[in-house]
Amino acid sequence: MTIQLYELVGSDSARPFSPHCWKVVMALAHKGLAWESRYVPFTEIPKIEDGSGIVPVIRDGDATVSDSFAIALHLERTRPDGPSLFGGPGGEAMARFVEAWCQTQIHAIIGKAAIMDVHDALAPDDQAFFRNSREARFGMPLEETRERGLSELGKLNARLEPVRAMLRHQPFIGGASPLFSDYILFGAFQWARIIMREPLLGHDDPVLDWFETCLDLHGGIGRAVPAAA
Amino acid sequence: MTIQLYELVGSDSARPFSPHCWKVVMALAHKGLAWESRYVPFTEIPKIEDGSGIVPVIRDGDATVSDSFAIALHLERTRPDGPSLFGGPGGEAMARFVEAWCQTQIHAIIGKAAIMDVHDALAPDDQAFFRNSREARFGMPLEETRERGLSELGKLNARLEPVRAMLRHQPFIGGASPLFSDYILFGAFQWARIIMREPLLGHDDPVLDWFETCLDLHGGIGRAVPAAA
Repeated sequence: MTIQLYELVGSDSARPFSPHCWKVVMALAHKGLAWESRYVPFTEIPKIEDGSGIVPVIRDGDATVSDSFAIALHLERTRPDGPSLFGGPGGEAMARFVEAWCQTQIHAIIGKAAIMDVHDALAPDDQAFFRNSREARFGMPLEETRERGLSELGKLNARLEPVRAMLRHQPFIGGASPLFSDYILFGAFQWARIIMREPLLGHDDPVLDWFETCLDLHGGIGRAVPAAA
Repeated sequence: MTIQLYELVGSDSARPFSPHCWKVVMALAHKGLAWESRYVPFTEIPKIEDGSGIVPVIRDGDATVSDSFAIALHLERTRPDGPSLFGGPGGEAMARFVEAWCQTQIHAIIGKAAIMDVHDALAPDDQAFFRNSREARFGMPLEETRERGLSELGKLNARLEPVRAMLRHQPFIGGASPLFSDYILFGAFQWARIIMREPLLGHDDPVLDWFETCLDLHGGIGRAVPAAA
């Protein structure tokens, strides 16, 4: 039975933007697996079958797995013969460090700077839910969170120095070819690419070259959704 | 024939402080190998047998290898049966990301904040060399570099957020047990521990717990050199 992937969408289900869902799309493609996407707006997430209240979720036969990293581990363990997502136990452990770095250093900025873009991409019911939940989380109006995020965008350049230094040794975080650790960072930039109008990366930034290469992976599945106009 | 490790020292050869040399000490101990340390002050580095002009250097039979990461790779390839330093090809690749992160985010601050402490630990000839080379590198007096470094120490706390987020999943960067990626970050804090009087980590910081655990590894080899008074 084909894997079912529950992906977050706004009012346009042709433009899924969740960074965590994109990590899973890339992981499924990396493993050469077939899947069907089920598009879910924010207010429908609690009704997804496992009731975990988060996306992404996959249903894989009898198993239901939520959380992008948990899904990648599930795919690695249940399909050990496909191309590895981690390159061994050390890569599995260090992908946690890459995830922790990406969440605290990169998502922390994009999540604020893009907050009105996400809001504006949602259907009305979801907009109300999103505004209430995010205003409670950040303790301020969405518009003010956005201003703070935009004022922090300038920090992003310095925070990407580790990626540039790494790219002087190898083309991917995973080495000579991409691993799940690359998809972790890819998810952040794909999110920004689909939802934000502000470009995050300079045209001569090696991180942009890496991202463009990732957009071409697996038949260009990432590029199939056009960038925000 | 026992591996010879050329390690940087100041006037007191019982207090080797180079972060990169500590990475190699931990890697050699991790592999269960015997080695002899040869203590080298800054002005003697160009006379080390491979003439690379950097430390650490190891002589291992007919091979001479310099650069801590290259040495770890050499040990992994020539002693494949010992405990792995990388945990597979993914871990080897991602250790480069950890190194890049540590160099650009952590060393960049400690290297400036500790610059007078390093200077003061050196013999007179080495002090002159160190002052000239570092003043050329930073384009300002050592004392001013130190002031800038100290003013940046407050950033260190936020820059360690990825490590704290990772430690919520697992005890080491390498997963359930340490790998070379842990020794990369260990080297930075061991350098600071031996040379600086300012404590870098709060007493309730989970990163300090991780560091203390690393000091106990391999018979407590890291703890054998006392902290700066």
